[in-house]
Amino acid sequence: MKPDHTDLPQPICTVDIVLLTVRDDGLMVATLKREHAPYIGRSALPGGYIHADEDANAFGAAMRVIRDKTGIVPPYLEQLSTFSGPTRDPRGWSVSIVHYALVPGELIAQANNASVQLLPVDRPLALPFDHELMVRTAVERLRNKSQYSSLPCFLAGETFTLPQLQRIYELLMGEPLNKVSFRRKITEMDMLEPIEGGFETAGAHRPAQLYRLKAAFRQRLMLLERGL
Amino acid sequence: MKPDHTDLPQPICTVDIVLLTVRDDGLMVATLKREHAPYIGRSALPGGYIHADEDANAFGAAMRVIRDKTGIVPPYLEQLSTFSGPTRDPRGWSVSIVHYALVPGELIAQANNASVQLLPVDRPLALPFDHELMVRTAVERLRNKSQYSSLPCFLAGETFTLPQLQRIYELLMGEPLNKVSFRRKITEMDMLEPIEGGFETAGAHRPAQLYRLKAAFRQRLMLLERGL
Repeated sequence: MKPDHTDLPQPICTVDIVLLTVRDDGLMVATLKREHAPYIGRSALPGGYIHADEDANAFGAAMRVIRDKTGIVPPYLEQLSTFSGPTRDPRGWSVSIVHYALVPGELIAQANNASVQLLPVDRPLALPFDHELMVRTAVERLRNKSQYSSLPCFLAGETFTLPQLQRIYELLMGEPLNKVSFRRKITEMDMLEPIEGGFETAGAHRPAQLYRLKAAFRQRLMLLERGL
Repeated sequence: MKPDHTDLPQPICTVDIVLLTVRDDGLMVATLKREHAPYIGRSALPGGYIHADEDANAFGAAMRVIRDKTGIVPPYLEQLSTFSGPTRDPRGWSVSIVHYALVPGELIAQANNASVQLLPVDRPLALPFDHELMVRTAVERLRNKSQYSSLPCFLAGETFTLPQLQRIYELLMGEPLNKVSFRRKITEMDMLEPIEGGFETAGAHRPAQLYRLKAAFRQRLMLLERGL
């Protein structure tokens, strides 16, 4: 007869968060110095145990961990994938339910948390556990999804100009976009509203209209049938 | 000071599998009668605990559970999403790492397991836990991904004719497809090879060429930039 595993210790169960933002024209990931073993003192993704006494689900656990460890409430958070196995964590067979968060630079500045260190995702990241693979997986998901959705808007801040938004899309898609067809796609998605009387002046250019996401799209993604 | 959760009991950690197949022109999901509490005797998705002593990861656990409980080795298995929370399982705060499997009807017939019951996904499923939501999520993922990938081929069996394959695509996409543009897309994906001398005769039609997936695509998906 096979052993009954019901009474065996359960795997270690954690959440980890790939928090992404745009700075200096580059996509960055947030890391924190680890305060506990294993890998104490090393820069790693924010993460932590599920707290069965307070978390409504893994999403709630991820939101709590980000808030408690960074002071940031991300406008976008989505489950990415679950990483698991006997060797990824030296404490034993473990499961990490990985989420990715998109946060505009201004929210990171407001949180003003000196322990949050931003690293460019396109350079090698010397992270412990399988955190580097988590970052690669999140960046790939973000880049794929950016081709046909409003997802990049969550990196743009509460208000933004169309050139600023186009710059973020270009950065994620890794290539310049035609201004006319970009604006046609954005109009087609019908997800933005102009800020009345809101303009931003940059250098010698004439003032650019400021926009924000329509209320309906702050809670859910707008998807395009055809990519940009 | 916050409590240290390191020594708290970890959540219950399971895998569940949404095993999908095509029969009688309909998409079906495999269920088994539960042999243990809770919900003993009820039809539910195949699932089980992670076995830390033998599973390489959650994917391995899902493959083991399907094999042990149904006798089927699915040609396609992918992680879907992780469901979690304090109330989804009466045993306590729990995590289920859900996978979906695609299995051609002929493999289910070969396994000849009387305890496997197939239910049509498009009708209400009276399943315990959050298994109905798992099925809905898997079907949505499969249907979305079928628009731009070779995924439906894994429902078609080892060899199939182009009309048979088109029928599966149509069933997943919920609408008739134009034969000429379907064949152009399939040719573009360059994922099939004809079986030399392999033909199938159906009714009054002239014999149709049999195809199979090229070896490279039995291990990975072919993705189209533009959908069908």
